[in-house]
Amino acid sequence: MESAMSAAAPAAYAPTDRTVPTRSRDRAHYDHETVHAILDQAYVCHLGFIREGAPVVLPTLYGRVGRRLYLHGSTGSRPLRMASQSDPGLPVCVTVTQVDGLVLARSAFHHSLNYRSVVVHGTAHQVTDPQELREALDALVDHVVPGRSADSRPANAKELAATAVLRLDLDEVSAKMRTGGPNDEPEDLELPHWTGVVPLTQGYGEPIPADDLNPEIKAPPYLTQR
Amino acid sequence: MESAMSAAAPAAYAPTDRTVPTRSRDRAHYDHETVHAILDQAYVCHLGFIREGAPVVLPTLYGRVGRRLYLHGSTGSRPLRMASQSDPGLPVCVTVTQVDGLVLARSAFHHSLNYRSVVVHGTAHQVTDPQELREALDALVDHVVPGRSADSRPANAKELAATAVLRLDLDEVSAKMRTGGPNDEPEDLELPHWTGVVPLTQGYGEPIPADDLNPEIKAPPYLTQR
Repeated sequence: MESAMSAAAPAAYAPTDRTVPTRSRDRAHYDHETVHAILDQAYVCHLGFIREGAPVVLPTLYGRVGRRLYLHGSTGSRPLRMASQSDPGLPVCVTVTQVDGLVLARSAFHHSLNYRSVVVHGTAHQVTDPQELREALDALVDHVVPGRSADSRPANAKELAATAVLRLDLDEVSAKMRTGGPNDEPEDLELPHWTGVVPLTQGYGEPIPADDLNPEIKAPPYLTQR
Repeated sequence: MESAMSAAAPAAYAPTDRTVPTRSRDRAHYDHETVHAILDQAYVCHLGFIREGAPVVLPTLYGRVGRRLYLHGSTGSRPLRMASQSDPGLPVCVTVTQVDGLVLARSAFHHSLNYRSVVVHGTAHQVTDPQELREALDALVDHVVPGRSADSRPANAKELAATAVLRLDLDEVSAKMRTGGPNDEPEDLELPHWTGVVPLTQGYGEPIPADDLNPEIKAPPYLTQR
């Protein structure tokens, strides 16, 4: 009976005090499918940590493997150095946001954005296992372009030594979304202002070959077919 | 002589220990023109602050007036409550990032993103002056759509009371950018992998009128002419 129930319920992250918003609770989502889709679609995350008592937020490359995020750095970057010096790890907050539309209400007060965001709280640890480090680098490359890690030269020993990657388990996680049109006040409905949503679109331009690329090497299907 | 020199040099933010990167220093920029252009083009910032000893990063609406940022919240949101309770203000880091392209190198190691980002360190204060609060709300609306604040109903007293805005002076600020193609190692130039940049494009879809919009009200020129 219990297994039948858990099979029916979608897998989800357990809400915590930090992941239940103080307002607009109906915009919060915890199911893996929603959270992972947002994480997989964005290109940068914003990595927050504390340095000398003050908050720092840096845009960072990342990749996801199951319920883990891998965050990219070099061995010289500040959060990476701090994570390797910190025991037991670096407390972080990682946030990913996609903006989907501009919401124009009749009143200034109700203007908003449509968006999807994910916030992850946790402790980041530097990846030290060589096999996990290789898998993390593949995930980082495949996050930029799915399938690309198999079509590039793998990192050599020197490059692996120069790259530091932070692992952040997905455990205390939530998504938040706003969709739909503006929420004007009933008394404003007759005002003469246009109201609605302007969608924001994201796309890919024509791939630009590097100056030193052999012109006989054409852009691969994983670039041209999307 | 001094005034002639300062007229010739572009206005710039003074670098500090926190705004000089530990690596890729050539990617750092401090001039107002570069910093403000990035701030004006993005739609959300990532607001970092410390709550109960842990970092928190939240996507946030914002607007810029000269050398000030205004960050949006409601009087019930956590950072706003913290800023109003904190004396002398809430230490924050605000980061804005635009991703411009996917950089595909021949080696996994040299994959990257082209991007433009701005990081602001400082102390945020809740706006309490009614006149400044109105100006800040106009800036927030005009950041979503330039010119829109003049074509919507201004906030009334009840709405002003329900809105809290944080002010963050632009003082300790830097921009960071990556542009151009991949930086492959000389020994990799003959590898058979395609290499170059895939540009990311952002655009606007057709405006979607609200369901309850009077169909005689057409989308205004500030929406259709961009």
